[in-house]
Order: sequence, then structure tokens, then C-alpha cells
Amino acid sequence: MAATAELYQELVGRLKETSLLGSCVNVLGWDEQTYLPTQGAEHRSNQLGLLAGMIHDRATHPRVGELLGELGQRSDLGEPDSAPVVNVREARRYYDRATKLPKSLVEELSRVTSLGQQAWVKARKASDFAQFRPWLEKIVELKRQEARCIGFDGGVPYDALLDEYEPGMKVGDVQAVFTPLREALVKMVAAIAGASKKPDVMILHRRFPVEAQRVFATDVAKRIGFDFEAGRLDVTAHPFCNGIGPGDCRLTTRYNENHFPEAFFGVLHEAGHGMYEQGLDRGAYGTPMGDSVSLGIHESQSRMWENFVGRSRPFWSHFYPQAQAHFPDALGTVSLCDFYGAINDVRPSFIRVEADEVTYNLHIMLRFELEQPLISGDLNPADVPTVWTETFTRYFGIVPPDDRRGCLQDVHWSGGMLGYFPTYALGNMYAAQLYNAADRDLGGLEGQFAKGEFQPLKEWLNKHIHHKGKQYRPQRLVEMVTGEKLSPQPLIDHLWRKFGPLYGVGRE
Amino acid sequence: MAATAELYQELVGRLKETSLLGSCVNVLGWDEQTYLPTQGAEHRSNQLGLLAGMIHDRATHPRVGELLGELGQRSDLGEPDSAPVVNVREARRYYDRATKLPKSLVEELSRVTSLGQQAWVKARKASDFAQFRPWLEKIVELKRQEARCIGFDGGVPYDALLDEYEPGMKVGDVQAVFTPLREALVKMVAAIAGASKKPDVMILHRRFPVEAQRVFATDVAKRIGFDFEAGRLDVTAHPFCNGIGPGDCRLTTRYNENHFPEAFFGVLHEAGHGMYEQGLDRGAYGTPMGDSVSLGIHESQSRMWENFVGRSRPFWSHFYPQAQAHFPDALGTVSLCDFYGAINDVRPSFIRVEADEVTYNLHIMLRFELEQPLISGDLNPADVPTVWTETFTRYFGIVPPDDRRGCLQDVHWSGGMLGYFPTYALGNMYAAQLYNAADRDLGGLEGQFAKGEFQPLKEWLNKHIHHKGKQYRPQRLVEMVTGEKLSPQPLIDHLWRKFGPLYGVGRE
Repeated sequence: MAATAELYQELVGRLKETSLLGSCVNVLGWDEQTYLPTQGAEHRSNQLGLLAGMIHDRATHPRVGELLGELGQRSDLGEPDSAPVVNVREARRYYDRATKLPKSLVEELSRVTSLGQQAWVKARKASDFAQFRPWLEKIVELKRQEARCIGFDGGVPYDALLDEYEPGMKVGDVQAVFTPLREALVKMVAAIAGASKKPDVMILHRRFPVEAQRVFATDVAKRIGFDFEAGRLDVTAHPFCNGIGPGDCRLTTRYNENHFPEAFFGVLHEAGHGMYEQGLDRGAYGTPMGDSVSLGIHESQSRMWENFVGRSRPFWSHFYPQAQAHFPDALGTVSLCDFYGAINDVRPSFIRVEADEVTYNLHIMLRFELEQPLISGDLNPADVPTVWTETFTRYFGIVPPDDRRGCLQDVHWSGGMLGYFPTYALGNMYAAQLYNAADRDLGGLEGQFAKGEFQPLKEWLNKHIHHKGKQYRPQRLVEMVTGEKLSPQPLIDHLWRKFGPLYGVGRE
Repeated sequence: MAATAELYQELVGRLKETSLLGSCVNVLGWDEQTYLPTQGAEHRSNQLGLLAGMIHDRATHPRVGELLGELGQRSDLGEPDSAPVVNVREARRYYDRATKLPKSLVEELSRVTSLGQQAWVKARKASDFAQFRPWLEKIVELKRQEARCIGFDGGVPYDALLDEYEPGMKVGDVQAVFTPLREALVKMVAAIAGASKKPDVMILHRRFPVEAQRVFATDVAKRIGFDFEAGRLDVTAHPFCNGIGPGDCRLTTRYNENHFPEAFFGVLHEAGHGMYEQGLDRGAYGTPMGDSVSLGIHESQSRMWENFVGRSRPFWSHFYPQAQAHFPDALGTVSLCDFYGAINDVRPSFIRVEADEVTYNLHIMLRFELEQPLISGDLNPADVPTVWTETFTRYFGIVPPDDRRGCLQDVHWSGGMLGYFPTYALGNMYAAQLYNAADRDLGGLEGQFAKGEFQPLKEWLNKHIHHKGKQYRPQRLVEMVTGEKLSPQPLIDHLWRKFGPLYGVGRE
């Protein structure tokens, strides 16, 4: 009988090789979104299709199944929650998902989403859903097939998709936290709408030269802890962070000369993701212990740096003089107080990625409410613009003027990422819980930010979240680190504490 | 017995898949040279090592050998020089080379050259050969092993390496054209050195703002026919052209604010390569019929656009007013005649890629004379700087001041590309022959250039060279298109015709 250590090493070797091949896909994907010439799109989709198939072959190789079966029975693999036990458990989960998907479906998804994203870019530019509709139809149909292949164990098909991004989470779990969150937000938005205090947001629409934005955002990202020796910042249509591998993490943004927050907070957001990637255990690269735990936790990192840090008053009491130096024409005569008010303007708006901390979560709930019937078959893709407009109007009280500012704004559906959106709001809730815990442990984060000290928070996150890899499932990880189960309350409390005084409103 | 068409389709499918995987390497390689963060180098070399091994596995798959063996015996494959016959012939050649190399050697070469190139970048920056020496030693040893594995059929080991880049060419063939070329060049350089006319090259060292250089070079590359919808231009340390696949060809350059020719003629050079890549038959992608025929012919394209077109008087009689508009401070008061003289300055210099049309070929011969003994074992890598300096001084009459301007200037050795250099001078000779043929066919290229018409030449090259793929071996292709065998005479004649009047010198 082969020694456990030997079988485990064979498994790890296979996992690492598959990860390495996956990281090649990451490079090609990053390039596709940043520098690929228009006419190269078809060739790129052929490349990605080939690699996706090869990864699927490796991930579903019968030998991996044998190794997992054998190792699953070995009592000498390690203590509970030790690296070998975790890696085998998570590899098992991944293998089970992967072996349920036929290779033809995986390749077709890769091909269609690659071309679909190109079509989406054009459709979004033209603000014309009709151009994108055939692709959405294909993609939804493929994702339905995917859900059927994965199975959903007495639940709903959407569970199967959600589980990919937030392991262990069900539609019911999401609804249980979304419902009280929605109720609280609706009250809060109404209270703010009725407030007499209104920030002057036009100061953020002055001219902010793109090159100065790039320099300032890069500098701030560096100062909060993103390592540019192990990463970069480029321009794309729909910003993302791509953790290619050890020492190589790519942030992207888009600059709007006449709207400061878009790139700046976008960069902080992606830098939050990037610091998670850079904080992973390099020695465990290629295994679950060296990988991020879930998209919800990933989003908690980006939202923490974007909002809890980057939109806080002490952050700006430190950085505002530098912002004024970078943008003397726009900000030279604007007070810190007015600037702080403007970057925390709360009001219904059309674009999710530009939404404020309060209404943002309503954007997520809207998408969650469309995705479920799309996958169950109760909503026809052709009806998406109509249902989007109707639901959006109901939630926000304003009517999207066109598809570009409506259902074409996000890259996710064109990329086949259905089931992904809920993790954004989960991330906000996790962020509030983690921020409170860090604040307790570190004794007053705001005082540190005011002095330009961000390293303590970054290192706390490195230790408690990043270095843990996939050791614990996300909900358990948060409970271990914070002492509390997932709950919307810390987020609701944070929002009232911040926006109550800003707008002179209270809970009742 | 399987039908010939069926076997052939199976072979083509395998060739295309291998090419597609190779094109993923191209993307990663381009990224490595342009945008890769410093700390990502090790991961990148792991990625490239894995892909190189996978490509080798596919290229040497026993089934490919079976198919080639079977198809080689089929009389119904096609007419001589038809696509199936050519593809099988060239696939056979590639398969034979590949099966002679053990996978371990291929992977080690990929790994060592990836890290070696990073080391070279640093060593070159520090102008310190000692930092690069251990990598050169490893690489030379691996290339010696490669030559032994390939075999050289009674010739010399270097033949085996040269054949990779210029199929069918032997060291003896190269020497047969290099010897008369060297004799002619030595006379020409001496005549020019003794001439009383000297251009004022300092006008090219004025301030040429980088952004204006980028815009002007991009515009000119577009005007001569490089398609930016199917390609790009980026910045790198050692410029190259990377034809990733259909619709995706990447040019690179480096800008020197105080030296105009570096980026400008570099871009024309790479655009010449790029137009070859863009001119390949897209329908034949992934097979030899859709691939460039040799590096020598590739170089003939780049040198033709860089020198025969880009450094010609009619080219500048068209573009010079635009150059003056882009660089009013530097060129506003400089006459076309003085500018034309300056960009055609001939004098010994240290850096190959900045060398003039005449002395350039001596740089190549220097490298050819070092590479042969490195591979035969007669020259120790540690002695390269000494021998470089000694040979360089003998050829050029000037002494390289440091390693950066000596043996560390080129990327080739760090990339394992020994046997590559001779193709540059072959390219110059082919270019002269092809240019003469095009000029005859098209009835006066210079008159067209003066009117800004470059499409006729580009389309002539598309038809006679690019679309041919690997249909004929390079020497035969040139003979078919020009009616002459490879010869140094057309190049020598071109150089006298151009530089004689410029410097007021004659052949005797």
C-alpha cells in the first residue's frame, strides 16, 4: 500500500500543475480585457477554449479521483483543519463539481463567454441590448445546463451556481440576510432623501486630469499596502483584479476626467482584492490552502478598503492635502468637510459600480432577483430589459434611461458569472463584521488612518484572512475571527453611525 | 485502410492545436517583455516551462509520427508543392527535430532562458557581464546538448542550430556570402571614413518628446500598411515583433527622447515583421502553409521597410513635413537634405540595433564568429567579453567602453537563440534582391513612395512572400521570385548606389 505522504504529494503535484495552467488563462484573460487588438478576439477565444478544455481534463483526470478516494480514507493524513486535510477536502469539492460537467459544456461556455464579452463591449457602447441578447440567451441556457449537471440537492437550481462562488451558501441563506438588510436600507434611503442637508457633488465633476488621477491613485494604493513590485495597474472597460500568481497581481481601472470617484475608489476597491491575493501564502501556491476562500470574503476586502477605509473621514484628513496638490484647480478651494460630504453622497443612481455605500446593496438585490428566474426558466432573457427597468424603478424610484445604464452595465452575465452578484452584498456584511473585529484588536483604526498608518490593518487581514487560504469555509472563518455569525446588523449599524450625522437623520 | 484525406485532417487538427498552445506562449512571452511585474518572473518561468513541456508532448506524440509515416507514403496526398504535401513535408521536418530533443532538455531550456532573460535585463542595466555569465554558461551548455541531439550530418554542430532559423542553410553557405560581403563592406567603410562630406548627426540628438515620437511612429506604421486593428505597439527593453495569431500581432519599441532614429526606425523595422505576420494566410493558420518561411526572409521584410523604404530620400520627401510638424523645436529649421544625410550617417558604433545599413552587417559577422566556437567548445563563455572586445576592435577600429555596449547588448543569447544572428545579414541580402524584383514588377517604387503610396509594395510582398507560407524553402522562394540565387551583390550595389553620392565616394 502506497504511503499516505506519497499519495498526497502526487495529488499536490497535480493540483499545482492545474493551477499553473489556470494562471496562464488568467494572463490571457487580463490581456483580453486590457490590450487585445479588436481583430484578435476570435483567436483569443480559441486559445481560451483550448486551455479550458485542458484544465478540465486535468481537473477531472481519473487518477485525481483515485487519489482523493484513497486519501479520504487515510486516518494519518493530518489533524482536522491541517493543510493536507483541507487540501484534500477542497480538492474533493472541486473535483466533484468538475466531474459533473461534461468537457463539451466547459469548452462551449469558455468559447461563448469569450465571444459574448466582446459582443457585450460593443452592445454596451451602442447601448443596444438587442446586440447582446443572442449571447445572453446562449449563456443562460448553458448555465442552466451547468446547474442541472451540478445538482442542487432538493434546493433550487440557482443554489448550484451560487455555491461555486460562496461555498456552502444557499439561496435561503442569502434571503435570510438580504430581507432585513433591505428593510433597513429602504428606511435609511428614505430618511436621507428627506434630509435637508445635501452635499455639493458637483465638485467631484470638475476637471481631474487623467494622468494626475493615475499618479494619485497609484500612490495611495501603494501607501495602503498594495505592492507594485508584485503587481500593476492598467486601464480596462470594466475594472477587475486578476491575481495571476505569486508576485503578479493586476489591478485595472477606468478614468473619467470629469468624475473623480470612479477611478479613485475603483482603484482602492481593486487594491483591496489585490492585497488579498498578495497576502496569500506563496508557499502554498497551487493548493486550496494558498487560495482565497470565497468571493464574498474577497469582496469584504475590497469593500473594506474602498469604503470603511477610503471613504472615512480620518483617511481624508490624512490624504486630502495631497489630493488638493494633485488637483489644485478642482479642489484647491474645497474644504475637507465639503469633499468628505461629496464622496459620501447617498442617492439613487443607475450604475452599480458608482453607487454609494447605502444604495449599492439594492443594486445587488435587483440582480439577484433577476438571476434566479433566469436560471429557473421563469424569466426569458429577451425580457431582461423590461423587468430590469420595472424592478429598478420600484427599488430606486428612478427610471434607467437606456440599456447602457441598465441591464448592459455589468460584465458578469457576458462572462457567464451568474450566481456571483450576491457575494458583493455578502462582502459588505462580512466587511462590517471584520472591520469591527480589527478595530477591537488593534485599538482604534481611525486614529491610525489619520496618521497615515494602514499597515496594522493590512497585517491583521494578512494574518486572520489572507494567510488562512481555504482552511475554513467563509461563514465559519468569519465566525472564528469575529465571534459572530454572518449578520446584516453590523453593516446597518455602520451605515447609520456614518450617515446619520452626515445627513442629520436618525433611525426613527 | 484509412482514407488519405481523413489522416491528413487528423494531422492538421493536431498541428493546429499545437500552434494554438504555442500562441499562448507568445502571449505570455510578450507580457513578460512588456508588463510583467518584477516579482512575477519566477511564476512566469514556471508557466512557460509547463507550456513548453506540453507543446513538446504534443509535437512529439507518437500518433503524429504514425500519421506522418503513413501520409509520406500516400501518392494521392496532392501535387508537388500543394498545401497537403507542403504541410506534411514541413511537419515531418519539425517532428524529426522535436523528437530528437528529450522533454527534460526542452523544459530546462525554457526555464533557464526565462530566468536568464530576467538576469540579462539586470546585468545589462548594471553593465556587468559577471552577473550574466553563469546563465550564459548554462545556456551554451544546453544549446551544445541540443546540437548533439539534433545532429549535423558531417557538418559542424552550429549547422544544427542555424537550421532551426534558416532551414537548409549551412555554416559553409553563410561563409560563402559573408566573405565577399565583408570584403566589399570593409572597402566601403574605409571609403566613407575618408570622405570629406560628413552629416551633422547632432540634429538627431535634439529633444524629441516621447509622446510625439509615439504618435508619429504609429501614424507612419499605419500609413505603410501595419493594421492596428489587428496589432499594437508597446514599450520594452529589447524591441521585437510577436505574431500571436490571426488578428493579433504585437510590435514593441523603446523611446529615447534624445535620439530620434532609435524608436522611429525600430518601429518601421518591427512593422515590417508585423506586416509579414499580418499578411499570412489566415485560413491556413496553425499549419506550415500559414506560417512564415524563415527568419532570414522575415528579416528581409523588416529591413526592407526600415532601410530600403524608411531611410530612402523619396520616403522622407513625403513624410518630412509631418516630422517637422511633430518636432518643430528639433527639426523646424533643419533641411530635408541635412535630415536625410543624418539618418544615413555611416560610422562604426557599438550598438547593433542602432548601426547604419553598412556597418550593421559587420556586427552580425562578429556575433557569428563568436557563436561558432561557443557551440564547438573552442570558446569559453567566461572569455566572451575579452574576445568580443578584441574582435570588435579589429572590425570597427573602436573599443567598446563597457559590457552594456558590448556583449550584453542583445537579448538573443539570454533567450537561447544561438544560430539566429546570421539570419539578420541574410535578411539584408534577401531584401536587396526582393526590392529589385518589386521595383521591376511595379515600375518605380521611389516615385510611389514620394507620393505616399506604399500599398503596391505591401501587396506585392503579400502576394509573393507572405501568402506563400512555408510552401518553398527560403533560398528557392527568393530564386523563384527574383530569378536569382542568394547573392551579396544586389546589397553591395544598393549600398554603393545610395552612399556613393551621399559621401561623394566611388568603388575604386
